[in-house]
Formats: sequence, C-alpha cells, structure tokens
Amino acid sequence: MADLHIQINREKGGIAGQIASELRDSIRRGRLAPGTRLPATRDLATDLQVSRGVVVEAYEQLVAEGFLVSRVGVGTQVTPKNAVNNARKPPRAAAPTRVRPMRRTGANPYYGHRPTSPDLTHFPRERWLAAVRHVLTTVPSDALDYGDPGGVPELREELAGYLRRVRAADVRPENLIVVGGVAQGLSLVLHVLSQHRGLRLAVEDPTSHRQLPLLRRAGAHLVRVPVDEEGLDVRRLSGDAVLVTPAHQFPTGVVLSPRRRAALMEWAHAGHRTILEDDYDAEFRFDRDPVGCLQGLAPDRVILSGSVSKALAPGLRMGWVAAPADLAEAIRRARGELDLGSPVIEQYALAHFLRTGGYDKHLRRMRREYRRRRDALVAALAEELPKVQVKGIEAGLHMYLELPSGWEEQDVVRAAKDLGLSAEPVGPMRESPGPPAVVVGFARLPTHKAAEAVRGLKIRMS
Amino acid sequence: MADLHIQINREKGGIAGQIASELRDSIRRGRLAPGTRLPATRDLATDLQVSRGVVVEAYEQLVAEGFLVSRVGVGTQVTPKNAVNNARKPPRAAAPTRVRPMRRTGANPYYGHRPTSPDLTHFPRERWLAAVRHVLTTVPSDALDYGDPGGVPELREELAGYLRRVRAADVRPENLIVVGGVAQGLSLVLHVLSQHRGLRLAVEDPTSHRQLPLLRRAGAHLVRVPVDEEGLDVRRLSGDAVLVTPAHQFPTGVVLSPRRRAALMEWAHAGHRTILEDDYDAEFRFDRDPVGCLQGLAPDRVILSGSVSKALAPGLRMGWVAAPADLAEAIRRARGELDLGSPVIEQYALAHFLRTGGYDKHLRRMRREYRRRRDALVAALAEELPKVQVKGIEAGLHMYLELPSGWEEQDVVRAAKDLGLSAEPVGPMRESPGPPAVVVGFARLPTHKAAEAVRGLKIRMS
Repeated sequence: MADLHIQINREKGGIAGQIASELRDSIRRGRLAPGTRLPATRDLATDLQVSRGVVVEAYEQLVAEGFLVSRVGVGTQVTPKNAVNNARKPPRAAAPTRVRPMRRTGANPYYGHRPTSPDLTHFPRERWLAAVRHVLTTVPSDALDYGDPGGVPELREELAGYLRRVRAADVRPENLIVVGGVAQGLSLVLHVLSQHRGLRLAVEDPTSHRQLPLLRRAGAHLVRVPVDEEGLDVRRLSGDAVLVTPAHQFPTGVVLSPRRRAALMEWAHAGHRTILEDDYDAEFRFDRDPVGCLQGLAPDRVILSGSVSKALAPGLRMGWVAAPADLAEAIRRARGELDLGSPVIEQYALAHFLRTGGYDKHLRRMRREYRRRRDALVAALAEELPKVQVKGIEAGLHMYLELPSGWEEQDVVRAAKDLGLSAEPVGPMRESPGPPAVVVGFARLPTHKAAEAVRGLKIRMS
Repeated sequence: MADLHIQINREKGGIAGQIASELRDSIRRGRLAPGTRLPATRDLATDLQVSRGVVVEAYEQLVAEGFLVSRVGVGTQVTPKNAVNNARKPPRAAAPTRVRPMRRTGANPYYGHRPTSPDLTHFPRERWLAAVRHVLTTVPSDALDYGDPGGVPELREELAGYLRRVRAADVRPENLIVVGGVAQGLSLVLHVLSQHRGLRLAVEDPTSHRQLPLLRRAGAHLVRVPVDEEGLDVRRLSGDAVLVTPAHQFPTGVVLSPRRRAALMEWAHAGHRTILEDDYDAEFRFDRDPVGCLQGLAPDRVILSGSVSKALAPGLRMGWVAAPADLAEAIRRARGELDLGSPVIEQYALAHFLRTGGYDKHLRRMRREYRRRRDALVAALAEELPKVQVKGIEAGLHMYLELPSGWEEQDVVRAAKDLGLSAEPVGPMRESPGPPAVVVGFARLPTHKAAEAVRGLKIRMS
C-alpha cells in the first residue's frame, strides 16, 4: 500500500478537493505508479482524521476524471498503464513560471514596435476610461450577449458618419463590418473573394512584407506591381483585384496621383475588378486636407479598410471594412463563422468616443504634434545629412529615406535603433531592385531630440 | 456654366472643405454631370465672397480625389464619364439612417439569445470597470502597441494558474493562446490541423448545429458519432480527431463517464489522434466539484478550449486554447497571420480580475444562484409535467427535456418562447433519429417565476 504523503490544511476548507489535488499530483509525477492500489477509504479517513465521506468524495472525483479506477473486489487503484498511457508520463514543472517572451523569428514579425506606430504615451487614457464607464453604466444587459457578428449597430452608425465626413466615403451602416483591425479585415475579405476560385491579387512593390503571409494564408495568389513617383503603376496592373494604399503608400509614402486614381477606377470598372483600399495613414495628412478615399468614387468596386491603430492604439484591435451590400453580407457571415465578432464593450466605447467628439479632438491634437515632430526631423536631416533624400512626408508617421551611395540599409537601421529611432530596411519589402532606402518613424521622437538623433546618425554613418 | 448652389457657413470655418464637400455631393447626385465645366476660380471666389486661394484649395482637393480634372486650356471640369463611370451613378440616400437589424436567416444563427446564455443582469459591471480602470492607470504605454498574437503574458499566466487549480489542467503559460472565444479557438486549431491534408473530424451526434458551418469553413470533414447515456460512444469513433464536450455535453447534458474517458484516451494514444476538448459548462457543476478536464490526463493529445462567455459574458469575446508546445506555436502564428491577436486592455482587465479573486467570487455567487433556478424549474416540471423527462441537470445553464409521445418539438419551443423561456428543438441538432426533445435555458428564469412558466407550458401543451 502506497504512502500517500497527503498534506491537508484544515483552515482552508474544501478537504476533499485538497485530497484529490494531492493524489492527482502524485499520479502525474509518477510517485503513484499505474496499478498502485490505494488504501480503503475507511483507513485513509482514519489516517487523515477526516470523515470517510470526504475520502469517498475525493476518490470519486478522481475516478470521474480517469486518474483512478474502482472495481468490485479489487478496490481503488491508479488507472493501469494500458488504460491511460499518459498518467505515468515524466513529471513536468508544475510551479507557476514567469512567461518568457516567445521566440521571435524573422518569419513571424507580427508584433513589436514599428516605424509606423503612434506615440502611445498620448493615448487618451482618461477619456477612454470615461467612455468605458459610460458604456458600463448605460448599456442594457442584452448588449453583453452574443451580438451581430457585423458589429454593434451604434458603432457602425458613428463610423459611417465619420467616414462620410472625414474620408468622403460613400458608405451606410449596412455596408460596414466592424473588425479586429485592417489585418483581420483583409483576411476576411480575401477569404470571401477567393473562396470559389483562386484570387490573383496585385500588391504594390515595394509593400509591407509583414502582410504577405497573411494575404497568402487567406487564399490569394500574389502579383507584384511597381510603385513609382505617382504611386501604383496602373498600366502594369494585372490580376482579379488589387490591394492599394492610396492615401500614403507603405513604404514609399507616395500619395496616388489624380490621373492614377482615374486610371485605377477605369481598370476596375472595365474588368469588374475589385480594389482593396487600405486607408493607410489617412488620418495624418499634414499640409492640406486629406484626399478623400477611393471608395467614395466607386463604392461598388472598392472595399475600404481602416482602423484606429494609428489614431488611438494598435492594441485596441479595432477597425472596419466598408463593402458593397452583397459582399458586406458575405463578410459578416464569414465573421460569424470565424469568431462571432469583436468584443462589444469597446465597440460601444468607440461609438461614444466618436459621438462626443473625443476622437476628432484627439486626432487634431496629435496631427499638430506629429507635424511638429516631422518638421523637426526633416529640418535636422536637411541640415546634417543633406545627401539623404527625404520622401513621402505629406502624411503618416514615417518617412522614406533614400540613402546616398555607399550606405547600407542594415547599417542605417542598426544605427538608428541604437539611437532609439524605429527604422526598417526597404530592401526586404521589394521584389524588383531599387535604390537603398530605409523607413524611419518619427511619431515617438520628440522635437527637441530630433537634431541630436540625426547628429548621432551622422557620426555613426561617417 | 453650372449653377453650383454652394452654401457656405462662415461661422463654421474650413471654408475650402465646405466648398469641396458641396461640390462632391453635387457630382455624386448627378446635379453636376460628367464633363461639366466649373467656373474659373476667380469667378467663383467673387461669387462666394471668399479669397481665390480658398477656391483653388477646394478644386485641388477634388482633383486629387478624382472628382474633377484640370487641363491647361480647358480649365476645371467634372471628370468625364469614360474616366470614372461611377461619378455619375444614381444618387444614394446620403442622410444618416438608423441601422436596421440585419437579415437573420436560419442558416446564419450566430447571434441572439440562446438557451445557454448566462444571466447578464448579473454581469459584475462595477468590478469590471474597476479592473479596466486599474489597467488604464497602471499599464505602460508600450502595452497598448502591437502585442504578442498569442496573448498578453500576464493573462496567460493567470489563466494557466486558474486552469491548473480549477480544471485540473496540465498547462503552462507557453501552452496557452488567448483567443476571441471558443469559436475562434476551434477555427484556428482546425485551420492549423487541416492545413496540409484534409482533417476528418468526429463530432458528437446530437451536437450544436450552429457550430457545423464554422467547423467546415475551417477545413474539417465531419463524421458524426452518437452520444448515449454515458456520452460519446467511443467504440464507434472514427476520424483523425474528435471534438467533444465532456464536462456537459451539448445538447444532452450528459457528463462523459469514467470508462468512456479512459477509452477515449486510449483511442487518441493508440492512433496518435487529437482530442479537441470544448470545456463547455465546466464552471457550473452543481452537486459536486467539477470533473477535471481531459487535457489534464493527456496534455500531449488534448487541445483544450474554453471561454468566459458563461462565467462573465459572451460579448467579451474572450477565451483560450491550451495545446502542446509545437501546436501552440503554430496556432499563435496562425493568429498572427489572421488578425494579430485580441484587444489588449480587456486582456489585462481579465488578468487583474483573476488575480484579485473577482472571477472566482463571481463564479461562486452565480453557481449558487443558478443552482436555485435549476432546482425551482426541476421541481415545477416534476409537479406539473411529470411525463416530461428532465435530463442533463448536473451542470450548465440548460436542461434537456425528452418529450412525451404526441408532443412536437416545435410546439414546445414556440410555447416556451411565448412564456419568455429560451428553448431550442433538438431535432435539427441530430443526424440519426432520436426521441423528440428540447433544450431549455434556466439561467434567466428567476426562481419565483418557474412554477408559473411551467404551468403556462402545461396549459399551452394540453
């Protein structure tokens, strides 16, 4: 008969649970081998000075879980090896361990700071908390139940108004699906578009190489189309659909020119093709009003995706897709068969934040601040590193720096990072060759640090 | 020359934006036809009594957006029809409309109240708000950036502790992926398991028919396996993997028997097959401690999914998947290529809620309350409708009622709904025939209403 080494704490209560837990651990660790007979309940109860019922309860629990078996004439024993191979497996550390950051490989770069991240020290914490408080003190209980996978109606209404007003979009609440950011929006759209046939999707070259595994996983076959000084080269476009960042191309920062916009529309209309518009950086246009989105020109051919990742925070994982009615319904249904929709409390909170003007106010404030930071960095680069060509600064939170001959992208990125600047090489974002360039984020670089950072870069690169 | 009917409001400011907006609307509505020439900027400025620069800005904006084209010698005109077919399309209602509830079809039932929903009037609003406040006043700014798609480390640590303690799971934080509920967990797991070959997935019969489109969309080929009084009939199991609800089968409410648990383990070990354990209703076991999860017996063969949908609210869309290390990494990567992970603020809030004991306290309180409601409904049924066989009441928020001969499932469901009870027919959940039965939820039925509801049902059915 095994010595069970059971420790119980009478002050804690739940004695049967404690006994079961100790026995379970012993079986897992192999201290109690498969087939081991346990003492009769009466004997163990006497040993532990507890009532017999308590031991019966503990045994029954473990029988129900499969750790013990109980047979007439044999008594209770640890489940034999042939019944459950695993009950005897080598012990694993059971003590709680601190989570180690998971392995980060080049092939799996979907996290971490990016040159395109906003300055999160300015996240409007108090006003966001006030919005959540408003929601939790006002929404009816039913609002917390399973909801429409297309999103909370109040939010779709506010978003439709916002997109009409600020992005010149041609959109009604019924065309909108609330999603967990542009990434999920694209996943869903491509899943729907590629379901019945392979979808040949044109993507910009260079482009955000982080996105490529996502696009492929969602079923798209990718075709690269070059970007030049006017944006996507529409004459060289092929495929059934195109993914484009017209407001501020990533990484080059080019704004799609008016004649390219017109040509892109013709391409879509002529072949009944679909434009996936990633309304990237549209919130932060510094020197004039933002250019309205493509979707406003051709709501039947363009699917618009956007998010609050730059306006508020990537961690909110909140965005939208606007699509023609039939596609919107298919996307919403796909969402219902993927994850049943986005969390509701923060959807209501964003609706409140939009309705009460908090969103616009925050954007105005950040636009001023980012413009100052951009100007400071541009001025410092012109002063200290005039051979570096600064491009794509009309909008967004990053700039595109074409490097002088002899500079290596990786060296610049490393030097920039050492100086606290987030930077990425453009080489890996290209399929066809191009001049060496890096992308540098300025959202987190205070104006008074710009000159110092650029001087540091100059020293490192000389 | 067109009469432009431009109304501007000088007090509002942003005059150029107002002019652009009015022109854009006129083009959209067809009041300004394709090809129409616009007045020279100087003339329009005089008409409107604004500076010429303001009109230039408005025109430039619309040229950039593609609504207007500007050519030397021709001046500015509305983009001709051949350039953008859509600019002339028939007007759409532009006024904000109230969102109408979207079409709800039988084939798309992923929302609405279910017999399995908790009583959301008891959602701990104040304590949840306090948790969000704690998060927003303490997390560093970087926590709001793109995060680990596998979930916030603090939450994975708390969940691992909770699942070890309450569900006898054998799990460490590295094995956990935070997901948007069991639906997303299953989508991801099946996507990963079925990626390189078709996955034959055994599902219980009867089962939650709502889930079947999700399972198929994620790539699984389904094989039905009957459920009897001991749960899933393991002898009739086939396939590469099985999806099972051992803690409280849906819809029958059967708890998987000890010998079936053992047989299921053997099936998995012998063929290196995978068990997907939906830890359904595990929180609410009324008459004894909950049976530990299968995963705790064979962590290398079982993938455990669970959520806070019943313990807190479905609208939070928060759950977890526990899987062996290599699969956990693949699932996490798939999540990174789907939507980059769950929103972070509520992940931190749940971690805080678990750490401070709020979660356990809420569960204890609700368990007592639901037990009372179950007892009241069971007593009323025994008293008034003794021919109805009540089953599956050991756990969960619903019971399974086998109907006397002559009763039609649909009649009972309709009558129950008229009385405010959420109910569903079991027929559509079955592939092989079975006795007529309905599922009735009791979570929202106050004890003092139970007798009245059952008497109403009796009258309706007699």
